[in-house]
Amino acid sequence: MKIHPPLYYGDYLQLPKILNAQAPESAKYGEEVHDETLFIVVHQTYELWFKQILHELNSIREIMAQPFVPSTDLYVINARLERVTAIQQVLIDQIQVMETMTTLDFMEFRDYLVPASGFQSLQFRLVEAVLGIRSEHRMDIEKQFINSRLKPEDRQALEKEESKVGIFELLEAWLARMPFSRFEDYDFWGEYELAVHKMLKQDHEIILNNPGLDEPLRAMELKNLETTRETFATLLDADKFAGQRAQGRFRLSQKAMLSAVFIFLYRDYPALQMPFEILSSLVEIDEKFTTWRFRHALMVHRIIGTKIGTGGSSGQEYLKSTTERNRAFLDLFNLATFLMPKSLAPALPKAIKDQLDIVYDARQS
Amino acid sequence: MKIHPPLYYGDYLQLPKILNAQAPESAKYGEEVHDETLFIVVHQTYELWFKQILHELNSIREIMAQPFVPSTDLYVINARLERVTAIQQVLIDQIQVMETMTTLDFMEFRDYLVPASGFQSLQFRLVEAVLGIRSEHRMDIEKQFINSRLKPEDRQALEKEESKVGIFELLEAWLARMPFSRFEDYDFWGEYELAVHKMLKQDHEIILNNPGLDEPLRAMELKNLETTRETFATLLDADKFAGQRAQGRFRLSQKAMLSAVFIFLYRDYPALQMPFEILSSLVEIDEKFTTWRFRHALMVHRIIGTKIGTGGSSGQEYLKSTTERNRAFLDLFNLATFLMPKSLAPALPKAIKDQLDIVYDARQS
Amino acid sequence: MKIHPPLYYGDYLQLPKILNAQAPESAKYGEEVHDETLFIVVHQTYELWFKQILHELNSIREIMAQPFVPSTDLYVINARLERVTAIQQVLIDQIQVMETMTTLDFMEFRDYLVPASGFQSLQFRLVEAVLGIRSEHRMDIEKQFINSRLKPEDRQALEKEESKVGIFELLEAWLARMPFSRFEDYDFWGEYELAVHKMLKQDHEIILNNPGLDEPLRAMELKNLETTRETFATLLDADKFAGQRAQGRFRLSQKAMLSAVFIFLYRDYPALQMPFEILSSLVEIDEKFTTWRFRHALMVHRIIGTKIGTGGSSGQEYLKSTTERNRAFLDLFNLATFLMPKSLAPALPKAIKDQLDIVYDARQS
Amino acid sequence: MKIHPPLYYGDYLQLPKILNAQAPESAKYGEEVHDETLFIVVHQTYELWFKQILHELNSIREIMAQPFVPSTDLYVINARLERVTAIQQVLIDQIQVMETMTTLDFMEFRDYLVPASGFQSLQFRLVEAVLGIRSEHRMDIEKQFINSRLKPEDRQALEKEESKVGIFELLEAWLARMPFSRFEDYDFWGEYELAVHKMLKQDHEIILNNPGLDEPLRAMELKNLETTRETFATLLDADKFAGQRAQGRFRLSQKAMLSAVFIFLYRDYPALQMPFEILSSLVEIDEKFTTWRFRHALMVHRIIGTKIGTGGSSGQEYLKSTTERNRAFLDLFNLATFLMPKSLAPALPKAIKDQLDIVYDARQS
Repeated sequence: MKIHPPLYYGDYLQLPKILNAQAPESAKYGEEVHDETLFIVVHQTYELWFKQILHELNSIREIMAQPFVPSTDLYVINARLERVTAIQQVLIDQIQVMETMTTLDFMEFRDYLVPASGFQSLQFRLVEAVLGIRSEHRMDIEKQFINSRLKPEDRQALEKEESKVGIFELLEAWLARMPFSRFEDYDFWGEYELAVHKMLKQDHEIILNNPGLDEPLRAMELKNLETTRETFATLLDADKFAGQRAQGRFRLSQKAMLSAVFIFLYRDYPALQMPFEILSSLVEIDEKFTTWRFRHALMVHRIIGTKIGTGGSSGQEYLKSTTERNRAFLDLFNLATFLMPKSLAPALPKAIKDQLDIVYDARQS
Repeated sequence: MKIHPPLYYGDYLQLPKILNAQAPESAKYGEEVHDETLFIVVHQTYELWFKQILHELNSIREIMAQPFVPSTDLYVINARLERVTAIQQVLIDQIQVMETMTTLDFMEFRDYLVPASGFQSLQFRLVEAVLGIRSEHRMDIEKQFINSRLKPEDRQALEKEESKVGIFELLEAWLARMPFSRFEDYDFWGEYELAVHKMLKQDHEIILNNPGLDEPLRAMELKNLETTRETFATLLDADKFAGQRAQGRFRLSQKAMLSAVFIFLYRDYPALQMPFEILSSLVEIDEKFTTWRFRHALMVHRIIGTKIGTGGSSGQEYLKSTTERNRAFLDLFNLATFLMPKSLAPALPKAIKDQLDIVYDARQS
Repeated sequence: MKIHPPLYYGDYLQLPKILNAQAPESAKYGEEVHDETLFIVVHQTYELWFKQILHELNSIREIMAQPFVPSTDLYVINARLERVTAIQQVLIDQIQVMETMTTLDFMEFRDYLVPASGFQSLQFRLVEAVLGIRSEHRMDIEKQFINSRLKPEDRQALEKEESKVGIFELLEAWLARMPFSRFEDYDFWGEYELAVHKMLKQDHEIILNNPGLDEPLRAMELKNLETTRETFATLLDADKFAGQRAQGRFRLSQKAMLSAVFIFLYRDYPALQMPFEILSSLVEIDEKFTTWRFRHALMVHRIIGTKIGTGGSSGQEYLKSTTERNRAFLDLFNLATFLMPKSLAPALPKAIKDQLDIVYDARQS
Repeated sequence: MKIHPPLYYGDYLQLPKILNAQAPESAKYGEEVHDETLFIVVHQTYELWFKQILHELNSIREIMAQPFVPSTDLYVINARLERVTAIQQVLIDQIQVMETMTTLDFMEFRDYLVPASGFQSLQFRLVEAVLGIRSEHRMDIEKQFINSRLKPEDRQALEKEESKVGIFELLEAWLARMPFSRFEDYDFWGEYELAVHKMLKQDHEIILNNPGLDEPLRAMELKNLETTRETFATLLDADKFAGQRAQGRFRLSQKAMLSAVFIFLYRDYPALQMPFEILSSLVEIDEKFTTWRFRHALMVHRIIGTKIGTGGSSGQEYLKSTTERNRAFLDLFNLATFLMPKSLAPALPKAIKDQLDIVYDARQS
């Protein structure tokens, strides 16, 4: 390593740039409003964190884009995904800082900001795009906002990103490549189906004998059980699955779904521990963005009220409507539907167990 | 003070009772499932916190039920409300403990719990009742669940509580008693109306001149402005307000609303500082329960999936639907609608200012 | 208000500057190390928050520097202090993001950073200076580090700030101006002394009769009681207090301390509610910086271990030693020492109560 | 599964017991003090969480006490350790609830509690004991307190627990059993030593050429480097290590330390991913208890001040002194000392890599 000139903290962090980037609009049109600086700084920290999230997600995408992903890379992928969730927790927590600004404080400068809006955060859209959210997953009003509000160069940057393969697609390919949707000498999914039947039979009995249910409720439960039975049947039938997928009920392919179910059921084997962590982290990322959107919408409502903006943002109504959407990994979030108690899950044959295991503690025993 | 016998930590806290109150159902029907203890303990801590919240809210109700509330009591009320929000933050944060239980862990014992359900938490319903949520504010499905699932004695306890006056009603009476909806020698609300007109006129100009709006958006904004104008008109017109209130648009009376608006606008005067804190704390309590419901629904969905329960709880769909409801103080949450920049708000005449002020720092100057 | 040209989110926040200020050193000397970006971004967000904290504290200083502080300004002061504590909570929480970087990750680029160090954060020193921490309050090693590591222009900026009056001094003057250390027609502090005697007499009896104490412990408790008695005597005796203050036992003047004790005891009166909130917020600010230093030291130890740095920072040992120091408002943190149960505190005469009160709820009763 | 009688939420959770276990002492001697209930409830929730932590740690101990630990059990161990850290975060966060009680509130009932004290929490001592903290690791004053304050039956329960093998010892045995301290055909630790020399040589050059260091600082750094060199030498020399261990510098055996270092360096291999997670979780548990003790001591100081208690607890001074102690896994916390940049760490031969790896993604490629 070469000896380099001494580094100074402020220069390294480029603080002259960072700390001179707060120019309140209110100061340009009259008296500076004290709280506008908070508004600027909060958004700048958000954008810095978005940059960091993009840095992590882009590196993960690169790793996952390899023809096959070495097992040592899985550790790296998950460590970076967990970093993203740690950052997201800060994004959520720091809403409490913004909430120290009251309506009256905000109203003093809001008109100067017209028509700027958080919709114009290119980086947030890029985060969604890297994860795998595409224009077709958005609601019409959101699409329209993005189109009408983004600068042409930002719109192009987003379109370019959306044209690339996202983490969702890479995950799907990785899951589909795994050898779990079909084993050579063992009909795992047949065993799984038997276990499902056993579980549903138990559920059926409980419903029939549950003294806490009155008749209308019992009838409803029996109907629900039928739906559950159908759902399992769909998972195990390639044609049915394809049909449901075409209607948007699933985004993952059947093969990928089966691998995911297998990983969730046998996550305690060394070969599946890190894959399980990765799937869990992806669900966590979706969940934390959902929570962030929700808390953000609450905060905006409280500060702005139902008075409509002057810049065409019709704010919090829209915000609420996206809370539950824009989740790339909804199939994984819904995966609980396809699980069963460990005690009912098929016991794996030794040959398969051995493939999933590394017995290093036993070596000296 | 009398000398009492020495106290021992474990006896004082009645730990033999508390720590021997975990009896996993799974142990009764076969092998004890490790994670069932977590399930029990988490819910027990929730119930302990609900007990504490009730302790605070009941004491607040008692204080507010006085014919008039001494100003020194306002400090006490707010300190206790802030304690409630601190507890709520713990309720939200500790969802992360429950989330360490995965679907497979939960499935091992869930069938033993049929048909027990969190709907049967009497204390949570009592908290809602003390705040002022009544049966008529609930959705039909929720009413039905409460009726069919609560034990008769619990249902009676809830009905009894709902028949008492809640904090909402006491707050309304307190706000209505305040002298802010009408001043003897000063037409404050006339001045306010002028300020509103000025603000809306500014908004109108901005919309007309905003180069960021295309024509359809501009038309929409102008329509929104009309709605806003109507909303203000409603606040200031007793008949219109009564009409909207009859339709459920407001729960507070007009008099109480006007006092609340006044407090928000002039919260920096000593006489209004604590009232403003109290109103803000009540909004915060609503907001934190809303956030808790939301996070709870997410957690349940992730652990249970869309597979329907066997005990008639149809879980997370219901949970989602109540997220935004059951808010006693929605009018306060929406209050931002009726505010304006401080610089536009009417300047108070000296006589009124003096009534709101205590100038103790000046005494020696 | 003038119509201004339309504002774009990214331009308003100066994102081109902010998002192009991350230049990893590792990239200059070989292959870019992935985690260096995190290191940069985390520190940049810290610096942005420090800028915001300075914005708030400087404005508070300006308000408090008025010859007398209008009561409506107290609300503003406290709102801004509470914003500072909300930001500090984020500073503490986001340590968890830094902790996602492991030792191995950090070691890949740490040598490139020599001799840059967090000691060189000018803004953090400015925050301490505005609060009222001066060079003479620092440990020698800290003084030496600051002197040897800061750039000349940064050192000058710090010295200039330290030469200004800080919030501590302004607070002291404000407290000393208050009329609570001496009342015209009422010997409050005489009454307080009587109450103290009563309290200590009770303590004495409890110690003598406490069956949980064996003899050595009882002797120790009796000795402690004597110390407590001395402490109270010091508070009430101008000469003793001055003596102790000269030795560094107190930083506030006696007059200011007495006002603070009075405010803590009668904080429920409208005139004292906001002063009490302000004193509490200042303690909270000290406490949160203390917690931040502590968590930061733990994190550094975990990532760096006891291996000494190459840049002369000998990191975590130093960090630990400052954890408990650099508190501007230690006298307020220690104030509990001078309080007594509300039931023992002197009942104020009506004339004084009236001065502290605003009875607005009663007007219509 | 058998059909069981319907379960009711309140019965299942034994709420009649839990919710009737709050008996304020103040109510027995005069008027009930409102805040005493908070004091009781907070401590009860702590004890419930301690019970849950014991449930997890005891189960982990049982798993680790097996002659060898199956790899699938490692997942279970880590999941439960991570649950413990999630609970600890709640323990830390909920200090903010206790902090809503001010000194005046607490003083109203504190005398009734004499001589009860948090030292008497048997469960907290059991948690320390299960982790592996023994009487000989405690400071004298702490030992004395525990001996004099615990009931005889509680003291016996603690002694019994301390006589059992703790997680620390089981971890040590597990690490020592691992085949990483010596490989058959590969002198790993010789390679490691070479890498250390290379790293220290680089450090030496940096110190000599670092223009940011003045002469006294440079001399200090060179001395530090010598210390670091010694530390590494100790790790690799059985006799030196044993000597240092006898003096309390290490608690783990050399063999166990070497395994831990190996796991930290090659944590990205499937065979080591979960072991690394387990070691990290154990450090996290120590760190979170340390943080909890620190925050707790701050809170007590703020509420009680320096006034000494009447029950012989001399509270916060003691609390502060234990903050940094009672860490079972200090060796792991200090492990960073023995690491090096990944790029300097020895490249493992293929045979060893294969033992650590499971290549399942490649199967179909």
